[in-house]
Amino acid sequence: MTNESDLPVVQLTPGRWGDPSHPVQLPTAARDALKHLGVKHPTPPRDETPGDAARGTATGGAPAAAEDRPGLTGSQLNFLSMVVGSQYVASDLDSRWAHTRGYSTTDLLRFRAGDTSDMPDAVVYPASHEEVQNLLTSAAEHDLAVVPYSGGTSVVGGLAPTRRFITVDLHRLDHLVDLDEISRTATFQAGVRGPAAEALLAERGYTLGHFPQSYEGASIGGYAAARSSGQSSAGYGRFDQMVVGLTLATPRGTIELGRAPMSAAGPDLRQLVLGSEGAFGIITSVVVRIRPRPTERHFEGWRFESFDAGLAAVRRLAQDGPLPTVLRLSDEVETAVNLADPDVLGGGSGGVLAIIGFDGPYNQATAGVLTAAGGENLGEGPGETWRTGRYRAPYLRDPLLDEGALVETLETAAFWSRIPALKAAVTEALVGALSATPPLVLCHISHVYETGASLYFTVICAQTDDPVEQWRTAKRAANQAIADAGGTISHHHGVGTDHRDAYGAEIGPLAVEALRAVKTTLDPDAVTNPGILLPEGD
Amino acid sequence: MTNESDLPVVQLTPGRWGDPSHPVQLPTAARDALKHLGVKHPTPPRDETPGDAARGTATGGAPAAAEDRPGLTGSQLNFLSMVVGSQYVASDLDSRWAHTRGYSTTDLLRFRAGDTSDMPDAVVYPASHEEVQNLLTSAAEHDLAVVPYSGGTSVVGGLAPTRRFITVDLHRLDHLVDLDEISRTATFQAGVRGPAAEALLAERGYTLGHFPQSYEGASIGGYAAARSSGQSSAGYGRFDQMVVGLTLATPRGTIELGRAPMSAAGPDLRQLVLGSEGAFGIITSVVVRIRPRPTERHFEGWRFESFDAGLAAVRRLAQDGPLPTVLRLSDEVETAVNLADPDVLGGGSGGVLAIIGFDGPYNQATAGVLTAAGGENLGEGPGETWRTGRYRAPYLRDPLLDEGALVETLETAAFWSRIPALKAAVTEALVGALSATPPLVLCHISHVYETGASLYFTVICAQTDDPVEQWRTAKRAANQAIADAGGTISHHHGVGTDHRDAYGAEIGPLAVEALRAVKTTLDPDAVTNPGILLPEGD
Repeated sequence: MTNESDLPVVQLTPGRWGDPSHPVQLPTAARDALKHLGVKHPTPPRDETPGDAARGTATGGAPAAAEDRPGLTGSQLNFLSMVVGSQYVASDLDSRWAHTRGYSTTDLLRFRAGDTSDMPDAVVYPASHEEVQNLLTSAAEHDLAVVPYSGGTSVVGGLAPTRRFITVDLHRLDHLVDLDEISRTATFQAGVRGPAAEALLAERGYTLGHFPQSYEGASIGGYAAARSSGQSSAGYGRFDQMVVGLTLATPRGTIELGRAPMSAAGPDLRQLVLGSEGAFGIITSVVVRIRPRPTERHFEGWRFESFDAGLAAVRRLAQDGPLPTVLRLSDEVETAVNLADPDVLGGGSGGVLAIIGFDGPYNQATAGVLTAAGGENLGEGPGETWRTGRYRAPYLRDPLLDEGALVETLETAAFWSRIPALKAAVTEALVGALSATPPLVLCHISHVYETGASLYFTVICAQTDDPVEQWRTAKRAANQAIADAGGTISHHHGVGTDHRDAYGAEIGPLAVEALRAVKTTLDPDAVTNPGILLPEGD
Repeated sequence: MTNESDLPVVQLTPGRWGDPSHPVQLPTAARDALKHLGVKHPTPPRDETPGDAARGTATGGAPAAAEDRPGLTGSQLNFLSMVVGSQYVASDLDSRWAHTRGYSTTDLLRFRAGDTSDMPDAVVYPASHEEVQNLLTSAAEHDLAVVPYSGGTSVVGGLAPTRRFITVDLHRLDHLVDLDEISRTATFQAGVRGPAAEALLAERGYTLGHFPQSYEGASIGGYAAARSSGQSSAGYGRFDQMVVGLTLATPRGTIELGRAPMSAAGPDLRQLVLGSEGAFGIITSVVVRIRPRPTERHFEGWRFESFDAGLAAVRRLAQDGPLPTVLRLSDEVETAVNLADPDVLGGGSGGVLAIIGFDGPYNQATAGVLTAAGGENLGEGPGETWRTGRYRAPYLRDPLLDEGALVETLETAAFWSRIPALKAAVTEALVGALSATPPLVLCHISHVYETGASLYFTVICAQTDDPVEQWRTAKRAANQAIADAGGTISHHHGVGTDHRDAYGAEIGPLAVEALRAVKTTLDPDAVTNPGILLPEGD
């Protein structure tokens, strides 16, 4: 069985997930299905983007037009070279283009359109906390704004600040600094990517257990900065629940937090840094709780008559246990779309698919709860299908866009009593906003708590002539529906720039002011991630 | 079996825990034991305190000397009456004295000395969030500083601000506002005390499961403001882990937080308010996770050869489970002191006592882990003894002080690998600082996490002529030892004024500045709890 620690770190390329020399093909059945949505090719195919055309490359080189932009001054480049060494300062177009934006559908569409508006002026590669601290300490003096970058996997505009900037790529901060086997904690530098962290821990017999869909590309620092939650959250918790300590470099200096698992010494400031998305500074290392690596794993599928029936079952497990490590429930539409073989659900009789997974021994008591709630055990087949495809979705989006489909995801969370109305409201809002290109709206629950759960939506429809604006309209309608139905604007994607206004409305203007006061204290010249999380000040 | 929901709210009286008409007697054996510590009567017995003598009362009436202090102006009293109604404004001496300080040993000693320096100028009793908000909104305009008060059980100087003030007593905010059985959440107003909250939930078949030693006196709002942790934290978690939403009235307006159990929409601001100890405003209601009320409970004692052996066992349970609801481990000294009957440990053969408790069925697997780790099951006897005495310690402190003993507690937490050295360092510091009156230093672990645990110390020795200064010296030494050994300054008592400097050193000056920026934003005139948690600004 493939383990997460055996997976390679994904080859990051701008505007496309995965290795461009091994493009993913869309299954023929899927291509046929798109026709029913009215999908045709409205955007230029990839090898005709302005940028590629200009440079005669189809592998993601930057548009030549960008070379017209003024670069950094000699004095700025000198400063950067002084701090990290000249070989670790890149101002060439390809390096800059490779660090432009993240992986939201809007990002991919802008990439395809050759839009260089969010391109950094340079990329620097510090190798230590001290180098990061020195960059931040003197950034304002050299009139530089910075964006921290390690996985680059933001899907909420977290890499597109509101001012010109340089990118601080953290991938050289790639060490496991300490492993405390008595306390079961590991100290990682921020740039360690998911598979690398698991491989480092596996050598010692441990696992972190954090497997978000971005696992192959994202990093420890990014998980922390964005309050990531992984597919095994029912067993291992969210990333912010794994963090027991962290080091934050800010323009005003370094903050180190976490002397104990829990404390009553004031507010939990770790939870103020977790989710701050680079707005207060750059997280350079994180101390996480680790666990012994499991010696066995089990995944299986279960069928319920309806989403409502499945919802009652997963709520029962979330509230009374025993929880598996992985617990997911697809709704009717997602179940129908994602199952290549409808026989999996027992003769195509409809219903919905749930997945449970155990890191460790199979727990019959969990299965007993599902059976008592009306679930039908489908065995390991669907479980293994899910497991082997669990990081697959980001790879499929590119060929879907190639075909002319618009495909994007959004997510929220709420207390259990609000979940049904929230799901209906978001679905209705998306269908209404996209009525010109009737969409499929898929939904699943993939993170549960005693008091509530997340809802994750996938939207697929035909692209219009202006797919960026098309999605903006749909997203705005979904955001309003989430707010009106009492959900949070993000369960695990974060705020970035895309959710900034909705986030401000969610916590209210006074709380925004309090956060801005923190930012102003730690980053008085607004050099780190300006406009991300919080609007730029006056 | 007595349940927590059957316990009465403790009768709060100034300077003494419990009902003064039913004073607690110290066991004769304990009184004899104190002689070995050199304890004699160095302070005036209770009925000879200056205040009591002046007023001719032995039940805690305020010293008459305090009447010399200037009171509130007519304009100030008018304002308070306008907001809460004149019948809910108390400026009489007894009301004010009854709200003076909390229940640290230093507080009790100052009470006995008739020290009125921290007495409020008036006490107001608002009945709603709106009244609290109106008080805060206009407090600065009327030159008033306020201290929120509900249980009054602070042991860290959390009720003694650095300026003259009025007390906002929240006990009229005593409603269960909402109970969402689907989400398993309950919304309580801040003034609901522990037993009242449990009784309200018990009517509906639920429990909160939060049982700190201050349970009988403390309130929901206080639990939240001070990041309380209860004796059943192994099963129910800390109070800050139970909170999913809250409402904070600040001088700048109201903040409402918590749309979902967890969110990636920015930092978790609930965790910024939890532990803020009134420095940002007054928490007026809290949404907490609740659970079905258990139908059975089991408590039992276990013996281990040594604290180190017991430590290994509780760490095993904390890291690999299955955890009981209650898990405690006394060290050799605490075991010896607390056991009236040494035969409990199997013939007085030494060793240490652990207590486990289950809300729900007894778990043989837990017992199996303890047995495998060398534990000897002592049965339900010691478990029930602990259970029935679990709220007893605060009652015993008063007669101990009456006898001339100095008795106080302090606590910390750290990662597991640091626990042994931390315990040794704090003990050594206390013994060293109190060498003129050789102390007994008792220690236990009562809160465990995967990555670490709390340490709780009880110190007993003879009082010197100046016991306040005597304890200040000892506490300073202990704080330094905690800092040097990498512990946090408080696991569940909080910061108040007593830990303010140590707290500042723990999080560092930049983090203090960030918190001060939050305070200045929400409370620009420093009207709420000035000098508590954070030093007063310039």
